Amino acid sequence: MSRTIKLTIEYDGTGFHGWQTQPGLRTVQGELEAALRTMTREDRCARGAGRTDAGVHALGQVASFTTDRAIPLEGFRKGLGRLTPADIGIRAAEEMPAGFDARFSATGKRYRYRLLPAPAPSPLRRHTTYWVVRPVDPDRMRAAALHLVGRHDFAALQASDDHREDAVRTIRAVEVRRELDEIVVDVVGDGFLKNMVRILVGTLLEVGTGRRSPEWVAEVLAARDRRRAGPTLPAHGLCLVEVHYDAPPGDAP
Amino acid sequence: MSRTIKLTIEYDGTGFHGWQTQPGLRTVQGELEAALRTMTREDRCARGAGRTDAGVHALGQVASFTTDRAIPLEGFRKGLGRLTPADIGIRAAEEMPAGFDARFSATGKRYRYRLLPAPAPSPLRRHTTYWVVRPVDPDRMRAAALHLVGRHDFAALQASDDHREDAVRTIRAVEVRRELDEIVVDVVGDGFLKNMVRILVGTLLEVGTGRRSPEWVAEVLAARDRRRAGPTLPAHGLCLVEVHYDAPPGDAP
Repeated sequence: MSRTIKLTIEYDGTGFHGWQTQPGLRTVQGELEAALRTMTREDRCARGAGRTDAGVHALGQVASFTTDRAIPLEGFRKGLGRLTPADIGIRAAEEMPAGFDARFSATGKRYRYRLLPAPAPSPLRRHTTYWVVRPVDPDRMRAAALHLVGRHDFAALQASDDHREDAVRTIRAVEVRRELDEIVVDVVGDGFLKNMVRILVGTLLEVGTGRRSPEWVAEVLAARDRRRAGPTLPAHGLCLVEVHYDAPPGDAP
Repeated sequence: MSRTIKLTIEYDGTGFHGWQTQPGLRTVQGELEAALRTMTREDRCARGAGRTDAGVHALGQVASFTTDRAIPLEGFRKGLGRLTPADIGIRAAEEMPAGFDARFSATGKRYRYRLLPAPAPSPLRRHTTYWVVRPVDPDRMRAAALHLVGRHDFAALQASDDHREDAVRTIRAVEVRRELDEIVVDVVGDGFLKNMVRILVGTLLEVGTGRRSPEWVAEVLAARDRRRAGPTLPAHGLCLVEVHYDAPPGDAP
């Protein structure tokens, strides 16, 4: 009988050409599917909830696959953990109802971008934070972010080579907070356009460093023109923190 | 006129064969002295406060050197930051009285060891925390640490290939605390023997996982026999956080 398994995965994106399998390149999906083949002797696709770009990290990426093997869940968790390289970790394995799909069943995601405003860069955090030499005011960023929360056409915040007909998405929350010397920006939404979080935080950062006013962000959004927004920040500051799913039917609310 | 400069240095120890210059190997001191030669056209030794081993990190290593050049301090900080590779960062440059020596003027150091007790390892923290699959009780470690604070003969906690005549050192504090899912151990002392912090935390961990009682640590210390203590934990969990110096004469207390 075919089973559907959900994996929760952490990875250090530094050494990968992103999530998605690409011929000849080291990717997270490619490594995970190779480990699955070794373990199950089946050739199945591991579908990921979010196709993170090269250099982007994950604390809670979700992947799903089907199998006909009777391997226990702990066997998948530990076995795949051992068979994947050290920059991939399997945090959990769960049995799901047939039809569960990590990508299409997802109802939302939380991404996190880490900024390090400091006079000098931090070697220990060079792969996980984006160094900004100027001071950054999180209160200004928070005021600017209010213009982005809600259901909007986010054409201004998508990569210029990405021309989807429908750029309407819902951002549920943008949380800006200090964590010691870092400014951490969490963006929670139902779906994201290409490079959307990196452009969104790049736009808020224009406000945080004082180059633009919080109200400018409302103008950028209304213009629906990528050229009006801030820069696409580097991939290494970004992390996919968690993927949301509806509770399965029958669960208490 | 000869000047004495103090540098505060952060580094990611992962890619280095430790601090100390070794022919043909990549070391922090080797990279720093190469950058100094490029900048000053002088061939001077950069003396470090602590000779960290391969894989050990630093947030606040201190190095001192002398120069006859009139380069401003900000020039040293920024210029050496640019001339050293991305895994070394210069956090501060200060002018010191003649005779200041990063190693011999130091009155103490703070080291930090990060433990990650968790069912699965963390890829994003694999170079900065030591993964422990068993649960760890910080209260038990704290009780055990009380036996180590003070002035003692620490022969039990030094590498077995290190036979100094005098193993008497003063540990001023051992602080054990939870930080989210990690157990962080800070050790503050006037001087440290070879591998002392890694053996010390390895010994406390025997208590934290329940294999030994807190009182066992007192027996280990009294026996002055390396074979009685816990294992030497891996280098990558260790970080030199700061080096202490007496305030220069004339400074307000």
